[in-house]
Amino acid sequence: MNTLNETHDPKLRSWVVSANAAGCDFPIQNLPFGRFRTAGGVDALRIGVAIGDQVLDLRATGLIHTDDMNALMAASPADRQALRAAISAGLAEGSSQQGAWQGALHAQSALEMAVPCRIGDYTDFYTGIHHATTVGKLFRPDSPLMPNYKWVPIGYHGRASSIGVSGQRVKRPRGQTKAPDAAVPSFGPSQRLDYELELGFFIGRGNALGEPIPIQEAEQHLFGVGLFNDWSARDIQAWEYVPLGPFLSKNFASMISPWIVTMEALAPFRAPFERPAGDPPPLSYLDSPANREHGALDITLEVWLQTRKMREAGAPAVRLTKGNAREAAYWTPAQLIAHHTVGGCNLQPGDLLGSGTLSGRKPDEAGSLLELTLGGKNRITLPNGESHTFLEDGDTLTLRGYCERDGAVRIGLGECAGTVLPAVALDG
Amino acid sequence: MNTLNETHDPKLRSWVVSANAAGCDFPIQNLPFGRFRTAGGVDALRIGVAIGDQVLDLRATGLIHTDDMNALMAASPADRQALRAAISAGLAEGSSQQGAWQGALHAQSALEMAVPCRIGDYTDFYTGIHHATTVGKLFRPDSPLMPNYKWVPIGYHGRASSIGVSGQRVKRPRGQTKAPDAAVPSFGPSQRLDYELELGFFIGRGNALGEPIPIQEAEQHLFGVGLFNDWSARDIQAWEYVPLGPFLSKNFASMISPWIVTMEALAPFRAPFERPAGDPPPLSYLDSPANREHGALDITLEVWLQTRKMREAGAPAVRLTKGNAREAAYWTPAQLIAHHTVGGCNLQPGDLLGSGTLSGRKPDEAGSLLELTLGGKNRITLPNGESHTFLEDGDTLTLRGYCERDGAVRIGLGECAGTVLPAVALDG
Repeated sequence: MNTLNETHDPKLRSWVVSANAAGCDFPIQNLPFGRFRTAGGVDALRIGVAIGDQVLDLRATGLIHTDDMNALMAASPADRQALRAAISAGLAEGSSQQGAWQGALHAQSALEMAVPCRIGDYTDFYTGIHHATTVGKLFRPDSPLMPNYKWVPIGYHGRASSIGVSGQRVKRPRGQTKAPDAAVPSFGPSQRLDYELELGFFIGRGNALGEPIPIQEAEQHLFGVGLFNDWSARDIQAWEYVPLGPFLSKNFASMISPWIVTMEALAPFRAPFERPAGDPPPLSYLDSPANREHGALDITLEVWLQTRKMREAGAPAVRLTKGNAREAAYWTPAQLIAHHTVGGCNLQPGDLLGSGTLSGRKPDEAGSLLELTLGGKNRITLPNGESHTFLEDGDTLTLRGYCERDGAVRIGLGECAGTVLPAVALDG
Repeated sequence: MNTLNETHDPKLRSWVVSANAAGCDFPIQNLPFGRFRTAGGVDALRIGVAIGDQVLDLRATGLIHTDDMNALMAASPADRQALRAAISAGLAEGSSQQGAWQGALHAQSALEMAVPCRIGDYTDFYTGIHHATTVGKLFRPDSPLMPNYKWVPIGYHGRASSIGVSGQRVKRPRGQTKAPDAAVPSFGPSQRLDYELELGFFIGRGNALGEPIPIQEAEQHLFGVGLFNDWSARDIQAWEYVPLGPFLSKNFASMISPWIVTMEALAPFRAPFERPAGDPPPLSYLDSPANREHGALDITLEVWLQTRKMREAGAPAVRLTKGNAREAAYWTPAQLIAHHTVGGCNLQPGDLLGSGTLSGRKPDEAGSLLELTLGGKNRITLPNGESHTFLEDGDTLTLRGYCERDGAVRIGLGECAGTVLPAVALDG
């Protein structure tokens, strides 16, 4: 069996040949977890590990004896690391498991993926300081960044039931909106449908109600990371959000990538977490040496758009933005967990914490159309001559993420893609 | 078998003698559902129906074959009504079931009750217009009621994992607060711990993602009602709530009564729903003749307080307020369901919708200490000479609710009671 460190060895190759291709999201150094069934099937979901263009049915290997991802996520870090080492050893070139495990492989293209675990509660944070500043200017020109922003990891509870997996289609929501100069609100399909580029952090072990998780222990409760699109209806949001926050503007659909990249896989891509000079230090419950030394995640993030016209013309998707989570986020996942639980709130295995929109410093690194178009004022011109402000029916929006560093093998988060459908009539 | 109408017959009496006592919350006309296990037991939860001071183990009667309350809640209204009629017939004086069902009864005092179903998602609304106005004045003297209030049923997503059942104890939360004149925030136990008097509406049948529930069908998706205390830390709330709404100030604990009083039981206590003269009519998706004719709920609500000193002296709890849900709420449950789903959000069986704090028109009908003390400025003097602004350690706060009308038998919602414990140290 390999040790945990050996699972990151750049020299490690898999007998699953597709995993060794340059640029593959799922080399043997990654080993993310997801839930699958055979496409079109009605059988129960099973736990799989992505390797190259294949999925390893984990129960069929005999390494686990459950189909319950949440139970697997609740395991201790030591047990998780042992499982990772065993999977790595079995998939490595020269493994004696190759014969036995060959039958546990399925082509990814033949599978239907699901939301990777049962998400009991979902919380969306607001860690993207450049996003908060740009959007704040649009909603509140006089006070873009609230006085609490650099002290409180701002977050709010989201809707768990409407979180779907990448590949689904999203109906444009209807709702109330009110133009600034209108006397009364009107009702109809959202005209300012947007995406939000986020990371989703999955909780592993939970905590009991009333027992906060100290920041020193927070990462032991973190299972892994996915790509998260918090679809947003900006016109509905602007009218409804005072005083209690966004509601229908965010709960018609959210979307998560099918693969959870574990904290073990991300170990080579951790980074120091430094506040800009002059900013106040975090309160002590949000601060630890380990968090300062390697609390951040060095993950490159991209957003791609393919309109219906592009798809019909056979034109590929175009990249809207490229940025890095490390530069975008003002708070680390460990800080989010420490803050979420400090008053006693209990987290449970499978709970999802959204990072908030991860926009970079530069305007063209923004993680939403609200920012890229400055509230719809600046149209984006696409290579085929189309121009966009917000999302149009037929648009396919795809988030991608990956980690690259000298001395480490590139790993990817896969993709989180959704296509916009027209609004449906209320009586249909 | 009795018809649904016959289950409300004031002449109906039960062979469970305690159910026939005047003032009993659980006469045979009520028949609320809950989940129980024998006290101190570790066995699985079972579904029970409260009758007098007893609980009928429903599976033991043979009427159902599941312990899954959420599955029962997902039944069609016709199936639910048939089940109610069968329970009513079996518990009625002279029923041939008496001999067989006697063994299915447990004394309530010998049982441990649980949260009555699995709550997937919890949404808290803000339907109490007098509450919104009074609190709005405290937080925003210049604009107490937001321009959207009479158009949008304001709501936000809450935390499901920390909802507990009546009888539990609540640790005072710690968190960040900032006095208006302080330069930086500080961290410590909340000094402004409060309750919120709410009704909790439980969803029965759900809807599919992307398929709104029209208001005409909304009540078919409503299963029943409980008492709900949305414990709140006002000082944490004031510092954290902009711009995305309350978070840690509300998620350290919420509390629901053990019994869900069904919409069938509440049928005799429905009331017309009229907006004050001069208010705008609701948008069409929030309006229906049936909702205007009997969309409201005529439920009397009370709040009782017993301090530690009172308990130690053997003094009974004192009533802080008494009001009525009908006069407090600006939106009906049907409107909340229609609004929640109009953009496509899916509701699931067992989901909980909080009404928001139900304060009456008069200052002494307020549903929170924030209102009763005008933000902590006016102390409340108790009969034993103690005076209170916000909740103190050792306080037991109890919500009660009941329905009374000429020609109908009084039914009660039981109680929702919790006791405040001191904050715990972060390292303990």
